[in-house]
Amino acid sequence: MHLVIIGGSDAGIAAALRARELSKDVRITVLLADDYPNYSICGLPYLIGGQTPDASKLAHRTTFPAVDMRLRHRVTAIDPAGKSVSIERPGGTTELQYDRLIVATGAHPVRPDIPGADLPGAFVLHTIDDGLAVLDAVRRHRAGKAVIVGAGYIGIEMAEALQQRGMHVTLLSRSDEVMPGVFSEIGAMIRERLTTEGVEVVTQAGVERIEQGMVVEQRLVVFTTDGRRRPADLVILATGVRPATDLARDAGIALGEGGAIAVSDTMATSHPDIFAAGDCAVTRHRLHGKPTWISLGTIAHKQGRVAGENAIGGSRTFHGIVGTQSLKLYDLVIARTGLSDTEAREEGYEPLTVEIGAWDHKSYYPGATQIGVWITGDVKTGRLLGVQMVGRAGAEVSKRLDIVAAGLFHGIGVDALNDLDLSYTPPLSSPWDPIQRAAQDWSHAAARSG
Amino acid sequence: MHLVIIGGSDAGIAAALRARELSKDVRITVLLADDYPNYSICGLPYLIGGQTPDASKLAHRTTFPAVDMRLRHRVTAIDPAGKSVSIERPGGTTELQYDRLIVATGAHPVRPDIPGADLPGAFVLHTIDDGLAVLDAVRRHRAGKAVIVGAGYIGIEMAEALQQRGMHVTLLSRSDEVMPGVFSEIGAMIRERLTTEGVEVVTQAGVERIEQGMVVEQRLVVFTTDGRRRPADLVILATGVRPATDLARDAGIALGEGGAIAVSDTMATSHPDIFAAGDCAVTRHRLHGKPTWISLGTIAHKQGRVAGENAIGGSRTFHGIVGTQSLKLYDLVIARTGLSDTEAREEGYEPLTVEIGAWDHKSYYPGATQIGVWITGDVKTGRLLGVQMVGRAGAEVSKRLDIVAAGLFHGIGVDALNDLDLSYTPPLSSPWDPIQRAAQDWSHAAARSG
Repeated sequence: MHLVIIGGSDAGIAAALRARELSKDVRITVLLADDYPNYSICGLPYLIGGQTPDASKLAHRTTFPAVDMRLRHRVTAIDPAGKSVSIERPGGTTELQYDRLIVATGAHPVRPDIPGADLPGAFVLHTIDDGLAVLDAVRRHRAGKAVIVGAGYIGIEMAEALQQRGMHVTLLSRSDEVMPGVFSEIGAMIRERLTTEGVEVVTQAGVERIEQGMVVEQRLVVFTTDGRRRPADLVILATGVRPATDLARDAGIALGEGGAIAVSDTMATSHPDIFAAGDCAVTRHRLHGKPTWISLGTIAHKQGRVAGENAIGGSRTFHGIVGTQSLKLYDLVIARTGLSDTEAREEGYEPLTVEIGAWDHKSYYPGATQIGVWITGDVKTGRLLGVQMVGRAGAEVSKRLDIVAAGLFHGIGVDALNDLDLSYTPPLSSPWDPIQRAAQDWSHAAARSG
Repeated sequence: MHLVIIGGSDAGIAAALRARELSKDVRITVLLADDYPNYSICGLPYLIGGQTPDASKLAHRTTFPAVDMRLRHRVTAIDPAGKSVSIERPGGTTELQYDRLIVATGAHPVRPDIPGADLPGAFVLHTIDDGLAVLDAVRRHRAGKAVIVGAGYIGIEMAEALQQRGMHVTLLSRSDEVMPGVFSEIGAMIRERLTTEGVEVVTQAGVERIEQGMVVEQRLVVFTTDGRRRPADLVILATGVRPATDLARDAGIALGEGGAIAVSDTMATSHPDIFAAGDCAVTRHRLHGKPTWISLGTIAHKQGRVAGENAIGGSRTFHGIVGTQSLKLYDLVIARTGLSDTEAREEGYEPLTVEIGAWDHKSYYPGATQIGVWITGDVKTGRLLGVQMVGRAGAEVSKRLDIVAAGLFHGIGVDALNDLDLSYTPPLSSPWDPIQRAAQDWSHAAARSG
């Protein structure tokens, strides 16, 4: 059996490794468009910010025993009838037959549809080559001005990175607040933190166009919807990604939510013998059961592992997501899981959100810091819908959030958080963990509101 | 309705607060033997170690609105037929009628049955008064010698505390290793860490007797089973606790596992209208379903909350424990949940334990440290049985362990840990959390062994 995998990032490599782990006999070929197998693109902000000076360290792993890794092999077409793929590679083109195919083509960054978005000096950030290009520009403009378009995870991480490099950074958010995926109070804390560090944050600011500057040849000018002109040595377009599905679509493979490849829970596509995984594929949200699309390394790894197992004859199920994400910004940690209030309402729930502040550990032991917990549950059923959390690095915020994620995965009620037998020692927590304190306050509030 | 609660520590106060929260009408009286309502006795090592200089800060809370807190009211008898309790208080004795009673009498420290165990200078450590007495002795013997008998959680925490105070500390363990509740490799790491800090750790050392020293009046001499005589200005007897159930037993209330009060899942005792909660009561281990007895604040809070609700007419269930505990020792964090290999075997499981080392976050981001994960599962069924973890403070070890505790609570298989949608950002974790990496290695090892 010959298993061919298109894509050598998280999903593709996870698939290859799982197939290799389960079978000694299957022949495995991974086709990569670039030179960087299994690189952590989530690490690009740290390459650019300087915390990770050596780009080669971004590789999750560097050896792939008994996997045929073909770099600079760009697939140009899939022929499902002939069970082959067409490839452009250095020196020409070729074809490769497969018995089973896994499409793990990932996502493309979205360049906004505005004049000047493709000028030199305006960068998207998705591949290692993108990152190296930005790094090069940063080095040329150490004390210069950077404008970041888009204030989601990447935009915020890049604001810290470029500020750390000594640049004058402006972060533009189209919304009323930064980080649209979290409660606006949390967004405000992020904005304030960035502002404290010297980043100029502008909300309700769309970009109309980008022009080449007249005076200084290399400088760009960003025209924003608030009527301002912002000169920039460097523009980062962090306006999201879309699934890279041209190949799949051209091969007649069915697409689904968000234009991503439609897959079953076994990661099978509409075509026999073709699986898909990672950013190019649809996923399923456990809290509403519906297909959704989201670009995250954790999902790519999980889907890839399932696809790798099933492509060689296994029958594993991908169990879906609950929407867990985290962000570190300076010494702040922000994490969320589940549905926000707004998302929950859209899904027909009757959400109630309660916010508490609690010490990460007993305040009589030195170093205690406050954690903010926003907990959302369905008033009708008591079901736990989501939690968002903010605290200091060192306060175990991200893994504390994951306790909730584990509960959400099992569909528990808010009140059931109190039943969990969680660890406690005064330097690290409290007898009731902050998430349990929040659950208690929620139940109390829900009883009053009901 | 008059709810009387005997005991004002974790369980008693949790019960009072919950009853108060649910009902405005019930009259609530809490009878405390001492002066310290709702104090965190888990904090005693930090009072003595100096991290918490002010004992009053150990109070979890200091106000108890609409709860009648009676300090120095020691209950001497319960009369279930007459629904009253007899009380010794400053100035005399009295009786108090109840409609519902919650026994939350906690635990007593065990003074080992050896000659000299009650000499002045030989301390147990369980109440705030105990802690203050030890603190006083520590202040009188700053550069003196301390011998700690017993190398469980309290003994180990006290070794750090007294070493931090400048004392020469000897920690005696009867077992082959310190901290019998964890894998011996973890015990060895704890022992090495203590040794590095200058604590003398002696294993396989029981105590035969303690004598008053001849030369220096105030000094004790500890005679150990290895034939050594160890002079000590201060001896800490950290040899465990037993449930404080004399009152209950004398009232004819049925006792159970470990001599603790037998309770149903609603915290009801064998007597109508009498509930029990906390260290004096039996608990249930979810991994074998059997009654067990364990003294922990987290359990006391949970049981107290359930007892408080049910005593006033509610019908809440205490859902049992999975055996979660954590310890901070200098900058090491040790945490465990579930059953150890040995415990699992005793319960009829066929346990397999796999150990891995993994970075707490992506090693390309500064500050990554190694976490050791020991994962135990049942080879026959694939069921997750337990995890033990060791890492540095700041590596989110204790709350990472709690993700497993949440999974264990739901009875998941080892492999199902991989399905959990956990948070990832390079400065805080990896796309597969270390607990998931451990689960993958376990499944691989189990497949090979099967």
